[in-house]
Amino acid sequence: MTEPAPSTSPATGRPEERVRVAVLGSGAWGTTFAAVMADAGCDVTLWARRDDVVADVRDNHRNEAYLAGVDLPAGVTATTDAAEAVRGARIVAVAVPSQHARTSLAPFAALLEPDVVVVSLMKGVELGTDRRMSEVLSEVLDVPAERVAVVSGPNLAKEIAAQQPTGTVVSCPDETNARLVAAACTTPYFRPYTNTDVVGVELCGAAKNVIALVVGIAQGRGYGYNTMATVITRGLVEITRLGLALGAQVETFAGLAGMGDLVATCASPLSRNHTLGKHVGGGMSLDEAVRATGGTAEGVKSCVSILELAQRHDVEMPITGAAVAMIHDGRSVDDVTRALLGRPQKAESLS
Amino acid sequence: MTEPAPSTSPATGRPEERVRVAVLGSGAWGTTFAAVMADAGCDVTLWARRDDVVADVRDNHRNEAYLAGVDLPAGVTATTDAAEAVRGARIVAVAVPSQHARTSLAPFAALLEPDVVVVSLMKGVELGTDRRMSEVLSEVLDVPAERVAVVSGPNLAKEIAAQQPTGTVVSCPDETNARLVAAACTTPYFRPYTNTDVVGVELCGAAKNVIALVVGIAQGRGYGYNTMATVITRGLVEITRLGLALGAQVETFAGLAGMGDLVATCASPLSRNHTLGKHVGGGMSLDEAVRATGGTAEGVKSCVSILELAQRHDVEMPITGAAVAMIHDGRSVDDVTRALLGRPQKAESLS
Repeated sequence: MTEPAPSTSPATGRPEERVRVAVLGSGAWGTTFAAVMADAGCDVTLWARRDDVVADVRDNHRNEAYLAGVDLPAGVTATTDAAEAVRGARIVAVAVPSQHARTSLAPFAALLEPDVVVVSLMKGVELGTDRRMSEVLSEVLDVPAERVAVVSGPNLAKEIAAQQPTGTVVSCPDETNARLVAAACTTPYFRPYTNTDVVGVELCGAAKNVIALVVGIAQGRGYGYNTMATVITRGLVEITRLGLALGAQVETFAGLAGMGDLVATCASPLSRNHTLGKHVGGGMSLDEAVRATGGTAEGVKSCVSILELAQRHDVEMPITGAAVAMIHDGRSVDDVTRALLGRPQKAESLS
Repeated sequence: MTEPAPSTSPATGRPEERVRVAVLGSGAWGTTFAAVMADAGCDVTLWARRDDVVADVRDNHRNEAYLAGVDLPAGVTATTDAAEAVRGARIVAVAVPSQHARTSLAPFAALLEPDVVVVSLMKGVELGTDRRMSEVLSEVLDVPAERVAVVSGPNLAKEIAAQQPTGTVVSCPDETNARLVAAACTTPYFRPYTNTDVVGVELCGAAKNVIALVVGIAQGRGYGYNTMATVITRGLVEITRLGLALGAQVETFAGLAGMGDLVATCASPLSRNHTLGKHVGGGMSLDEAVRATGGTAEGVKSCVSILELAQRHDVEMPITGAAVAMIHDGRSVDDVTRALLGRPQKAESLS
């Protein structure tokens, strides 16, 4: 990655003050997003737990442990010190493991600047509380929802780190804060669009794993592009239906955080949901598939919570129901397929 | 394919009268759709030009010339005689080459039953007149638009012929006729949804080729899933925007004829648009790419007509514009990518 040219103020012709940013979490996505923001002209401090990661970033402009082979821009530095990481930071982006967010982030609450905008780079919901990740961040960091944004889209980290062109969504209830974050991550290869529908964006991020699981199952059963496209399309229709019941906006689901992320996830053979699904579609039990995948996948748990949520809101989600039936109730793919395709004739609408 | 059980009337317990259907055109898609309708319980006559194709269907239940290796159900027969093909037919489905539709279909106008419902299985627009295929059928067969339906979706013929599960859309301004056609092609592997937005469905069928071309170009340039998903998503947003200007409905674009067909087309490596695009993305000129593909592709011409249509309606279509720039104006992929990603920051919306 290349060093950005310092931007100059149109008024004075002198270099503008660069935006200070902290990225909490030094995994592949946190490190990649740090590089994007540095390429966009920000001064970025990556907070990592491991001394060796910090040393690698500082000394070699690399994070071989989590993002091997990628040169980081000079605008990225690193620290293990929480206070040092967020001091003066206008934007704090968070990419720590979702299920440990509360404990790892608690020490930061007292350290943040008063006008900070927090950015969630995380997906899924917190187990136990069913809170969306932006809600968790708002609670644990004591920052109001208007200052918590979410970044989501077709954003496979390695392709962004290779500077392949992509779009994304920056969603925040406060449009001005969405624009602030979007400006701080706009580069010639990364194009953010703003959006104020945080509920819709986060629902897409959780529900896409279920669809990817079913697409994997269909491929494991030997089905091709028609079946994949049908599952993606009708899957997104039922997610949209649930979203509308939860107050989300229909455009979000047809956008980059919805359709975009879903298509990238389902097309990539690397997703765990996809891989686990393929094993199930090939005839393995869930236990066997988890062993063959080397661990479980997000969609295995979330299909159950999403179906329960849908039932509470009286929303029909046949594909999510099919995922639960095949993954948890041991029903065969052929049996479930027959039931799905044998439902009464209907119009193609959201109602 | 298996012989369907004769359906019985719930009232009398005796076999119900089977629906008579004609399919005009014996290519891969016409033959496959004939098999689907026979599997759905219809008596289907395939009209073919070639005696050997008719003999193969009648004697061997095969159409080796156009759909090799597929056993056709017993409910499909064939003829070269136009009058015999459509006599008594409640539904006439048409799958002849789009650009010769007027001349090949003219003789049928006088032969159709008075209440016939015509089904277009064709995509694209007629060159010269810019008419949608359902409009061409309505004119040449002298059947009002209310009795012309369109079938479109993620429907790669070979996968349907292999009875892999898929959904589709049956669109007709008259919902009752849409339901009639849907019932006549519902099988355990083929699930139609009804829709009344013919303009939207046919626009999707024409515009998807342009997006597939651009996805191919991106892959030829070496870009991965993020770029593909971004092009598909933002491509569909701009098609939707044009559709709204033309009076189409937004749901159609997020449905099986829109997103569904687009995803199947872009994922399948077999599409000509995709292949030609890859050659251009790899550095060939249009002429070289056409030679390497063994002919041109639909999107090469339609990107120009769609961009003109958009300009007449004052609709912004940056990805279609990029296709024209790369295919016809010789602009480099990198140059066009920079321009696309460098546009001013904007909200993710249709307006």
